[in-house]
Amino acid sequence: MGQIPEQQPPKKALGWAARDSSGVLSPFHFSRRATGKKDVTFKVLYCGICHSDLHMIKNEWGSSTYPLVPGHEIVGVVTEVGSKVEKFKVGDKVGVGCMVGSCRSCDNCASNLENYCPKMMLTYGATYYDGTTTYGGYSELMVADEHFVVRIPDGIPLDASAPLLCAGITVYSPLRFYGLDKPVHHPRKKEEAIKHLGADSFVVSRSKDEMQAAMSTMDGIIDTVSAPHSLLPLISLLKTSAKLVLVGAPEKALELPLFPLLGGRKIVAGSGIGGMQETQEMIDFAAQHNVMADIEVIPIDYVNKAMERIAKADVRYRFVIDIGNTLKSSS
Amino acid sequence: MGQIPEQQPPKKALGWAARDSSGVLSPFHFSRRATGKKDVTFKVLYCGICHSDLHMIKNEWGSSTYPLVPGHEIVGVVTEVGSKVEKFKVGDKVGVGCMVGSCRSCDNCASNLENYCPKMMLTYGATYYDGTTTYGGYSELMVADEHFVVRIPDGIPLDASAPLLCAGITVYSPLRFYGLDKPVHHPRKKEEAIKHLGADSFVVSRSKDEMQAAMSTMDGIIDTVSAPHSLLPLISLLKTSAKLVLVGAPEKALELPLFPLLGGRKIVAGSGIGGMQETQEMIDFAAQHNVMADIEVIPIDYVNKAMERIAKADVRYRFVIDIGNTLKSSS
Repeated sequence: MGQIPEQQPPKKALGWAARDSSGVLSPFHFSRRATGKKDVTFKVLYCGICHSDLHMIKNEWGSSTYPLVPGHEIVGVVTEVGSKVEKFKVGDKVGVGCMVGSCRSCDNCASNLENYCPKMMLTYGATYYDGTTTYGGYSELMVADEHFVVRIPDGIPLDASAPLLCAGITVYSPLRFYGLDKPVHHPRKKEEAIKHLGADSFVVSRSKDEMQAAMSTMDGIIDTVSAPHSLLPLISLLKTSAKLVLVGAPEKALELPLFPLLGGRKIVAGSGIGGMQETQEMIDFAAQHNVMADIEVIPIDYVNKAMERIAKADVRYRFVIDIGNTLKSSS
Repeated sequence: MGQIPEQQPPKKALGWAARDSSGVLSPFHFSRRATGKKDVTFKVLYCGICHSDLHMIKNEWGSSTYPLVPGHEIVGVVTEVGSKVEKFKVGDKVGVGCMVGSCRSCDNCASNLENYCPKMMLTYGATYYDGTTTYGGYSELMVADEHFVVRIPDGIPLDASAPLLCAGITVYSPLRFYGLDKPVHHPRKKEEAIKHLGADSFVVSRSKDEMQAAMSTMDGIIDTVSAPHSLLPLISLLKTSAKLVLVGAPEKALELPLFPLLGGRKIVAGSGIGGMQETQEMIDFAAQHNVMADIEVIPIDYVNKAMERIAKADVRYRFVIDIGNTLKSSS
């Protein structure tokens, strides 16, 4: 254990993969590269299921290749580190999110925005520098360059920390960048709006009355919907100069109404996950403030059923696969 | 002349109006209200033709009422002021832009953003507080509350200052608000881009090569096109976190592509003219730095032909009607 020679053979691994656009997942034997000088290898204990996993196994974005092992909310415990690894040691609790590589030299990478690097490499379905295909976290074993590994602090349950690696950073990053983590300009009005709307300021977008009552009251909205939907009702909720930040990725372009945008100096913006520094910052923040995802932990052989339930929005609120206890080599 | 009693009858005025959605303009006799306590009355000398005049005379935005006297880039010389007017006196050179009223009490009005007031009143085609219809600047005479009148400084030609009141403030305001008036982050790269693209950094959006060369180089774009067009090529020109600001108003919603927006944390925003304080600031800036519009001055009886030419984008770059010398009462 610990630091290892660099010339090991690839490691055998078991995962669950989709074989075609039916999206059905089943056991799949494959190889991971040996732990490189800068690599961290870890035993996967939990992996969250993201709606984009569902898009990808069914090739709904048109970019999938098969076999495809999904999963980019991966947490576990380090089993090996390369000779040049500086940040991690065997036994550390770690996680990998949506990306496992980037050019490390462009303006975005230099600004800790690896997520916007034109050569950003996805955790699954991409071609790695050594020519191998990247496979995700629905698998017992993970190998990644330490730059793309985050530390999971003590004080946050491993299973509930998994969704933070995609879902968490995806909303944390725009909250910070677009200034939506600041107190609103009119706390008095905010209180009024909450009282007026009742129930924890929960607005049902299908309720005309509630939407009408909430018109022009919001400093910002983070829109996480990844199905096609109308932007006009959301833009109507914004105050002058306020922001609608899209982080979901519907398969089609949406209609952008112009008069409401011009007539209120309103902003529609996008945001995609976050850089590695910010991802670590988010995880640390979550641990410190005891913020975590509400999850439903499932065994690996429930994963196809879970996908069906996600498609019906039947989950409160994220599935996390118990890889450590339920993904076992039967060979 | 000068301050006047408050109980005068309405003033007779001659203008040119569209009578229906054919958009044809012809002489029209109507009344302006008498100069109120806070009103400034001025003889119109020049009025710019804005593309939105063309949209409005043909009812392309569905909000027009007839008869419709267009014109919201209006300049002239004060002939009367009300008893409570503080900022202007007879003989002053003044202008009126796109709006002549707002509630003066909402958050937007309190922030000098009258242009985003929900009760903002357009210079033509709106119903004024006294129940009369507002008529625009294709007319010999204008009456407006002094709050919505700007001073035209010496040192800027009156005719060339007219387009600043809509076209000018429409680009000035987002340049300021979205920070696009700041030096770019990488002056060296900017210089490279200019050299690479040649010719004053002029990019022809229909040229694939030029667009390809300009990809991911821009900190911001102000999109003034008021016809339906594709946003994707423009978004592709933006750097990470850069801004596409729409100020034109096509009659249809545009398609908003999502992956490029999310994949580059890019921003699509709107902006509509500017507040009164900022409009005055812009005019003063233009006078101080000798910035003005390139114009083609025309007589009033050329206005229908001018509209045809605007529809074909056949103008370098704005028409301004010489109201003072060519709009004469024939009655």
